[in-house]
Amino acid sequence: MSDVRVTVQSASEAEERAVSAGTTAGALFADDRTVIAARVGGELKDLSYELRDGDVVEGVEISSPDGLDILRHSTAHVMAQAVQELFPEAKLGIGPPVRDGFYYDFDVEKPFTPEDLKVIEKKMQEIQKRGQRFARRVVTDEAAREELADEPYKLELIGIKGSASTDDGANVEVGGGELTIYDNLDAKTGELCWKDLCRGPHLPTTRNIPAFKLMRNAAAYWRGSEKNPMLQRIYGTAWPSKDELKAHLDFLAEAEKRDHRKLGNELDLFSIPDEIGSGLAVFHPKGGIIRRVMEDYSRKRHEEEGYEFVYSPHATKGKLFEKSGHLDWYAEGMYPPMQLDEGVDYYLKPMNCPMHNLIFDARGRSYRELPLRLFEFGTVYRYEKSGVVHGLTRARGFTQDDAHIYCTREQMAEELDKTLTFVLNLLRDYGLNDFYLELSTKDPEKFVGSDEVWEEATAVLQQVAEKQGLPLTPDPGGAAFYGPKISVQARDAIGRTWQMSTVQLDFNLPERFDLEYTAPDGTKQRPVMIHRALFGSIERFFAVLLEHYAGAMPPWLAPVQATGIPIGDAHVDYLHEFAAKAKKQGLRVEVDSSSDRMQKKIRNAQKQKVPFMIIAGDEDMAAGAVSFRYRDGSQENGIPVDEAIAKLAKIVEDRVQV
Amino acid sequence: MSDVRVTVQSASEAEERAVSAGTTAGALFADDRTVIAARVGGELKDLSYELRDGDVVEGVEISSPDGLDILRHSTAHVMAQAVQELFPEAKLGIGPPVRDGFYYDFDVEKPFTPEDLKVIEKKMQEIQKRGQRFARRVVTDEAAREELADEPYKLELIGIKGSASTDDGANVEVGGGELTIYDNLDAKTGELCWKDLCRGPHLPTTRNIPAFKLMRNAAAYWRGSEKNPMLQRIYGTAWPSKDELKAHLDFLAEAEKRDHRKLGNELDLFSIPDEIGSGLAVFHPKGGIIRRVMEDYSRKRHEEEGYEFVYSPHATKGKLFEKSGHLDWYAEGMYPPMQLDEGVDYYLKPMNCPMHNLIFDARGRSYRELPLRLFEFGTVYRYEKSGVVHGLTRARGFTQDDAHIYCTREQMAEELDKTLTFVLNLLRDYGLNDFYLELSTKDPEKFVGSDEVWEEATAVLQQVAEKQGLPLTPDPGGAAFYGPKISVQARDAIGRTWQMSTVQLDFNLPERFDLEYTAPDGTKQRPVMIHRALFGSIERFFAVLLEHYAGAMPPWLAPVQATGIPIGDAHVDYLHEFAAKAKKQGLRVEVDSSSDRMQKKIRNAQKQKVPFMIIAGDEDMAAGAVSFRYRDGSQENGIPVDEAIAKLAKIVEDRVQV
Repeated sequence: MSDVRVTVQSASEAEERAVSAGTTAGALFADDRTVIAARVGGELKDLSYELRDGDVVEGVEISSPDGLDILRHSTAHVMAQAVQELFPEAKLGIGPPVRDGFYYDFDVEKPFTPEDLKVIEKKMQEIQKRGQRFARRVVTDEAAREELADEPYKLELIGIKGSASTDDGANVEVGGGELTIYDNLDAKTGELCWKDLCRGPHLPTTRNIPAFKLMRNAAAYWRGSEKNPMLQRIYGTAWPSKDELKAHLDFLAEAEKRDHRKLGNELDLFSIPDEIGSGLAVFHPKGGIIRRVMEDYSRKRHEEEGYEFVYSPHATKGKLFEKSGHLDWYAEGMYPPMQLDEGVDYYLKPMNCPMHNLIFDARGRSYRELPLRLFEFGTVYRYEKSGVVHGLTRARGFTQDDAHIYCTREQMAEELDKTLTFVLNLLRDYGLNDFYLELSTKDPEKFVGSDEVWEEATAVLQQVAEKQGLPLTPDPGGAAFYGPKISVQARDAIGRTWQMSTVQLDFNLPERFDLEYTAPDGTKQRPVMIHRALFGSIERFFAVLLEHYAGAMPPWLAPVQATGIPIGDAHVDYLHEFAAKAKKQGLRVEVDSSSDRMQKKIRNAQKQKVPFMIIAGDEDMAAGAVSFRYRDGSQENGIPVDEAIAKLAKIVEDRVQV
Repeated sequence: MSDVRVTVQSASEAEERAVSAGTTAGALFADDRTVIAARVGGELKDLSYELRDGDVVEGVEISSPDGLDILRHSTAHVMAQAVQELFPEAKLGIGPPVRDGFYYDFDVEKPFTPEDLKVIEKKMQEIQKRGQRFARRVVTDEAAREELADEPYKLELIGIKGSASTDDGANVEVGGGELTIYDNLDAKTGELCWKDLCRGPHLPTTRNIPAFKLMRNAAAYWRGSEKNPMLQRIYGTAWPSKDELKAHLDFLAEAEKRDHRKLGNELDLFSIPDEIGSGLAVFHPKGGIIRRVMEDYSRKRHEEEGYEFVYSPHATKGKLFEKSGHLDWYAEGMYPPMQLDEGVDYYLKPMNCPMHNLIFDARGRSYRELPLRLFEFGTVYRYEKSGVVHGLTRARGFTQDDAHIYCTREQMAEELDKTLTFVLNLLRDYGLNDFYLELSTKDPEKFVGSDEVWEEATAVLQQVAEKQGLPLTPDPGGAAFYGPKISVQARDAIGRTWQMSTVQLDFNLPERFDLEYTAPDGTKQRPVMIHRALFGSIERFFAVLLEHYAGAMPPWLAPVQATGIPIGDAHVDYLHEFAAKAKKQGLRVEVDSSSDRMQKKIRNAQKQKVPFMIIAGDEDMAAGAVSFRYRDGSQENGIPVDEAIAKLAKIVEDRVQV
């Protein structure tokens, strides 16, 4: 047999090799157990792929993004096989990999129970141990139809031309590609155990699944449409090692503990009453304190930075959003109109910018007033689909810390630089300090303004972003049509990334509103407009901080900064005096004067995540002192009252994290 | 002729008199020129009324409320006669007295011009001097129809049974009463000069009109309906003396100077852009400062008073307003619904109370938490008819300084007392100090809750109101169906009365929301609920203060507290340093570094109603000092910089009015 020449590509080098015909891709990587598939000429293939002359082959490691997808997709097949072994009536929907895991949809008579999931998981472990081989087989439409006659959803996929989905959710390539079935074959006998219409690729065998777990089940419409039958979806996760699985499960448990909706309830901070509606929260007194302190500090810093504060209403005639263009390109995101005064449509505002433009335009402006920075805590309303609404992080009504800066083109570079520095420093003040930046640049298909202005603006943004010394991710073509943008991504305490601030140039609205200022030479000029929000929304930032701190807010933000814990009834009044004195300094100190025992009071304060406990007994009273108990359980005794208050005040003033 | 016995009643005494038959009421008051009509058995009559046996007669003085109405109504007749003498084609509408004056509507080809008004006024003076007699004459419907054949609107009034209006806007009494025409008769010849369908009574002659003036004209639909023809209305005013007329005109001029809409524009504080819609204002940076300082101070005082701050959204499912009952009795005042999520109606909130109730009800409440005082700067939206919307005082969107207090019935008295004292003291802090109270009590036809609770609550309100030592006006039957109320009426610098704060008990909502707390004995109890807003709305209070101070806000509220005025260019930097130093102390100091001359700068600062000017020249600079110029134009020189800043800071801190 004639030799086949292939190039084996690795990250560092490319090696030419000659192998005999019929050699599989897997043979090239036989000594590397981490390789579970191959990329041949850029396309993912099974390791069983037979090499052809001229192939450029790369190993796909199980821990790489593609490797993880293949691992999870194969695990989905194992789950589907297990389900059909246990529930022979179950019909298959689709089963793609998703972020951190996979799912598979089934048409079954009744929803799976938690007990079902345990049994399915057990069956999967059995299949995993069997070491079944995943075997690819090309079929014609007709053959597939015959083989899958019992699987109506699969038949539907075969029948749809152009945009159907196989079990992995990817589009079936009709015409260009091949239709394939993957068989699960017994390791010893080669007997067919199970099969699925699927593009692959897959792991070599089920033994290559190092660690997996089923997570939960949910209902889902076939192909996402409410008009289709409701299927039952099971979610699972799979990882290259047991350690990684455990780390992921720990991460999920940690994320769940930090879920702001859960903490919001436990700490009595906010709620989203059903009577009001999803995505519309009320803030309870303690949440109100956190929010207010967040706002006050932001306001103070904005004032120092030269921002001017304005107010605008939440509703307006549609005319304004016609002028701004929002009704052309943002109508889907807006609440429906209210008709007033016999025929005039009023809308809730989804953005504050058009109103700020009216304030800019309320009188003539001189270059002397620029940069003019108009700031508002502006509550906006956006019609998010009910399916995507999530607590405070994706709401239907929220308050932006929104500002619009109007400046000359000459001022643009300095203003953007100042703004980005200000944004990052302010986020740091709230305790976030792990950032990267993203620069969204022009979509050549869709933009307003001249190339020259875009180029200048993009160059300026690039420059000011680089100056921050932070990682900078390009997002080519990701800009809105009206201007390029920098966005700040922040990592929280458990490594999750949140998009925080955006600094967005706008070449569109100044035109639409015909905004002008008088230049030194007396001519009318168009100002440059910058949109920027730091928190994004106060509600969302509130949620991010709550999750970041797992509810244990730093003292300056904590609704209760210290709880007084009397050792006995005799010390209650003493602590009330302490609290009153502290309140005069602007501190938020409460006294637990309930009938609970002291240990219970300590536990309650811990549960409420109060930064400090101020304990007092006979000795303390005699000495005019108190004892400090910290979050970590350590204690400092005999601190004179005034010193204790000064200590608290200093910690709050300095925004120390404890 | 037989004698007629009458009783002449005055404020202090009742005198029995016997007069000959045919004696008129006027004869009883012949020596008192201020009496211009009579009240006979409670009904108003002309002085020409012939006394009957048993009549109880009282003189009506021209300065009394009824006297003023009669004066103004008679002046309206004189105006109508003048118009018809000058514009013979003009057809008569109605012409009642109104607050401080009168109007008359005419059907004419084209609107009256200011020149027309002058000519009409001149003609009126002529008629006044003629001393025409007002003569009453009873007519049948048929006779009236014949006499007024040329007056289509009058004919319409005759024809309408039950609820028609005569020229004075009062209902024609059909059946019970008499139809009357008043003739204007020449003083000498008795010849008929003019006549009108009218109930009267009137002055004896046109000479009894001491002082009048025509004010302005406007368009008005016949009988207030858009379906009817548009008439032309002329407004006038009339007074018992030339001095009183002058005082009134001066007052109007003063009120116009203080008009918050005018000041809002002149001082660049706010605007109501047509693009947004009537009744929906935007606050510009300088107005934003005033508003923010107002809010901050209010918040600080509320915190000290034990209020807790919450936030709630501006939109909600209609379900909430069904639960609260607002959709039953307040739907007219609400914006129309927006339909979300296929069939769910959402509304803008016209009030915050239902949302605060949800916060109260978000978890179990103990008696230990009461009184619970939930406060919010809550922006509400109310669908005011476009005709009544007026600047910031009657708006379609405004922010209430709204709180709801939940307390036990035992706490009610003390809480109401504290609340009223707090309310009044806070209003005083903003510079209002001339108050009276109004107590609105049960409408026996329409109320919820037991008589006993109403009685107790009303007695408590009466008691706490009296304790304030302020005038207390009863408003029997004026309470809302859900509870009695105290309202605070404040007089401003030019004597106008504004309804400010309300303290309102509510026996309805706690029932509808099934609000409960756990009493010391473990039973569930219903809390008492108090609604209270101090400012009413921030926007409205902003407008009231603006008018009260005629725009010259006290320094603590002024957007710019001092303007630095350099004598020459050499002193600009020096003042900038001063301003920077002052800013560090939280003061708002600007420097006029424009190219204007010094006198122009002073005039500009005066126009902007800045409380202080800080002037600096060579001498000041050499001495490290500045000169203070006060609003009254007086000046204090050579104040060392630190002293000057401390002085400003003290004035602001103490909320001194300058």
